Amino acid sequence: MQRDLINTLPEKVGQSVTVYGFVQVRRDHGKIIFLDILDRSGTVQVVISPGVNLDHLPGAQDAICVTGMVNKRPENLINKNLPTGEIELAVQSLEILSKAQELPFDMGGKDLDLQLPTLLDFRALTLRHPKIKKIFKVQEMVVEGFKRAAQKLDCTEIFTPTISYSSTEGGAEVFKVKYYEHEAFLVQSPQIYKQIAVGAFERVYLISHAYRSEPSITTRHLSESIQMDCELGFMEFEDLLDALELVGRAVVEYVVKTYPDILEEFGVDQPKINPEIPRLKMREAQEIIRERTGRESNEPDLSPEDEREICRWALEEKNSDFVTITHYPTKKRAFYSMPDPQNPEYSLSYDLLFKGVEILSGSQRIHDLGKLEEVMKERGMDPKNFEMYLQAFKFGMPSHGGFSFGLERMTMQILGLANIREASLFPRDMERIDIRLSKT
Amino acid sequence: MQRDLINTLPEKVGQSVTVYGFVQVRRDHGKIIFLDILDRSGTVQVVISPGVNLDHLPGAQDAICVTGMVNKRPENLINKNLPTGEIELAVQSLEILSKAQELPFDMGGKDLDLQLPTLLDFRALTLRHPKIKKIFKVQEMVVEGFKRAAQKLDCTEIFTPTISYSSTEGGAEVFKVKYYEHEAFLVQSPQIYKQIAVGAFERVYLISHAYRSEPSITTRHLSESIQMDCELGFMEFEDLLDALELVGRAVVEYVVKTYPDILEEFGVDQPKINPEIPRLKMREAQEIIRERTGRESNEPDLSPEDEREICRWALEEKNSDFVTITHYPTKKRAFYSMPDPQNPEYSLSYDLLFKGVEILSGSQRIHDLGKLEEVMKERGMDPKNFEMYLQAFKFGMPSHGGFSFGLERMTMQILGLANIREASLFPRDMERIDIRLSKT
Repeated sequence: MQRDLINTLPEKVGQSVTVYGFVQVRRDHGKIIFLDILDRSGTVQVVISPGVNLDHLPGAQDAICVTGMVNKRPENLINKNLPTGEIELAVQSLEILSKAQELPFDMGGKDLDLQLPTLLDFRALTLRHPKIKKIFKVQEMVVEGFKRAAQKLDCTEIFTPTISYSSTEGGAEVFKVKYYEHEAFLVQSPQIYKQIAVGAFERVYLISHAYRSEPSITTRHLSESIQMDCELGFMEFEDLLDALELVGRAVVEYVVKTYPDILEEFGVDQPKINPEIPRLKMREAQEIIRERTGRESNEPDLSPEDEREICRWALEEKNSDFVTITHYPTKKRAFYSMPDPQNPEYSLSYDLLFKGVEILSGSQRIHDLGKLEEVMKERGMDPKNFEMYLQAFKFGMPSHGGFSFGLERMTMQILGLANIREASLFPRDMERIDIRLSKT
Repeated sequence: MQRDLINTLPEKVGQSVTVYGFVQVRRDHGKIIFLDILDRSGTVQVVISPGVNLDHLPGAQDAICVTGMVNKRPENLINKNLPTGEIELAVQSLEILSKAQELPFDMGGKDLDLQLPTLLDFRALTLRHPKIKKIFKVQEMVVEGFKRAAQKLDCTEIFTPTISYSSTEGGAEVFKVKYYEHEAFLVQSPQIYKQIAVGAFERVYLISHAYRSEPSITTRHLSESIQMDCELGFMEFEDLLDALELVGRAVVEYVVKTYPDILEEFGVDQPKINPEIPRLKMREAQEIIRERTGRESNEPDLSPEDEREICRWALEEKNSDFVTITHYPTKKRAFYSMPDPQNPEYSLSYDLLFKGVEILSGSQRIHDLGKLEEVMKERGMDPKNFEMYLQAFKFGMPSHGGFSFGLERMTMQILGLANIREASLFPRDMERIDIRLSKT
């Protein structure tokens, strides 16, 4: 089949072409009718002149095939904001390949102004809006930027399972699976697998699914999400901080470089990426917050408001949209986090904050079998449930650590979205699996 | 910390270096002791001379740090099979970073000759064997080759959920999840999501998890596996065949080009990749099998033995390790497969076989809403469970189709492994989630 992609049309002025795509919008201007047609490569304006006789006029979201002539637009009608803005396509013949039903809302505007529930109730439709699509073009490049950075660190890509026999991060927030005649769980993280893999590959990266049965609805949590992880062997705390900051910066830089236009369309300021990302211990961050706001805190963690405040400080004082917070209380972190030898109440853990929100979390890990078993006992965990994990530590495990980005969280922060659900193609939460779940 | 990667040592003859890695094997030759040390970049022979005093001698799988002098080996001791075979590292000092327990079996040989259950019972250890690791280096390149091919086809990478509210492929082989107060399922494939995405992105690719609760143990099925999928809009059957063969060839070519040495180590013949992959309808394949073997078959599918036989035919007659089989009976394929308009008993479906086994499956899809609803009714499916999926077809859906590779299956076939579990880092089946499941 002959097919001309829309982004090739500007080179084809004066030629007859055939375009396949979707109608984004139809504008009837008296006897002349304009269509904006989209294919995967771009958008073009199509003109149906009064002389052209069509059996059926296409409407919004119809899948169509148009044959027509590529014409230069008159000087005064050039659209500088569109890569095809200097040309238009004059219809010779047009076939409706698949007719769309009448839309429940207008999809022709630059923005799709819908409440979140409607946006998600009609996900199969709303994903077609050009601006919504761009969220996922950015997401794709977040992953690509991550992979490139991880590959530069010499990491091997691995694939880990989601069904597990133990819950790694503790707590009740775990989904149960009926696994043949057994009870199993969906992993809260690929933690145990990536640590085991360090013994084999030394450095690994992975894109994986993580599940948290959080019984709450917030703007920044999903029940199923995508994680981007690294785990690195023969590394100490400072090396790990260098590595995570390198990767965090690289991801944002990659997106900014690839899609400056999308960031502009979303009204996002160019991120401030300082080669020196400020690093603060959690208690230091709390002290700065106290000085700036008078808000006293001895909490064992930063609150969302604290995260926003310390990011404002980093931007104002250090010209950085990133800030690294280290040394969270050992008790508040997962069992495998290494306590700081100089003060074991605090751990060799870290979060990377970006524009007010934590986008990455990790730590140096305990790599001594005896200490690990001790910690597990203290926390009331049954080592029997971690047999394969503990096996890795029996056979020579060097100091190591790693980190994990939330893909949707990161996409949300880069584009300044209000809700993490906008950054997931098909978000899962307490109330929704594609359709709204009925109350029981 | 100073660190020299092993693959840089040949350039450092006469220099003192520091290497971090694992002991693969220790050989005591009277007073001289040799170690093979591995890091992520390679292997090197380390020599402990009688003059060097160490408090503790390192053993197999210890994580160590060695400082020593890089020396040229005498001509007669050069190992041409090793990138570092012209040098060795003479120990000046050596630190055991993490001591391994005594190994349950020898890890020092070129091959790891273990029965499958042992291989998996000690997965955290057996993954460290150099030859086992290479399976996953190949797997990484299978994915990389796939991604490159999909990107060449202009596909957008998407990420889809694994928790769903309906079972896409029908049948009872589905894992149930307790999702808050509801019952949900683990997806048997990302099918409905990738088809919905065609409406938005036209062409997509994805690496995803697929779950099949098959109540049987075979050498080529896993309960959880990784799929590599494409779904392509504005495509007809012949275009889809071209696309899948292009991707299939590209993946194998990429691996062959990247790791010829690994294929050789696994004793695998260079795959025969004919630019013209033979295409047969399933009934034609059965006829050829009957002519070659006298085996009569009117079955609605090819048996594993049939797949091997038709691959032998393709290799002998067409010099191709690939063969594409099309037009499987409509009833045997998933509901969304498009029946052949010329003979609706057969579908516009296809499998790609490689070296005797199906590695890819797919079809052109029904894209007409009315037909889709009709088929679902015929199969006793409740359209209510497919609300979001059907929504996509209400709003203009062009002809489209796609395909799906099994990552572990493909890795197994490329390396000629006997069992698919060898091609999964942490395989899941009826009897195992890392550890063996107790009988209930």
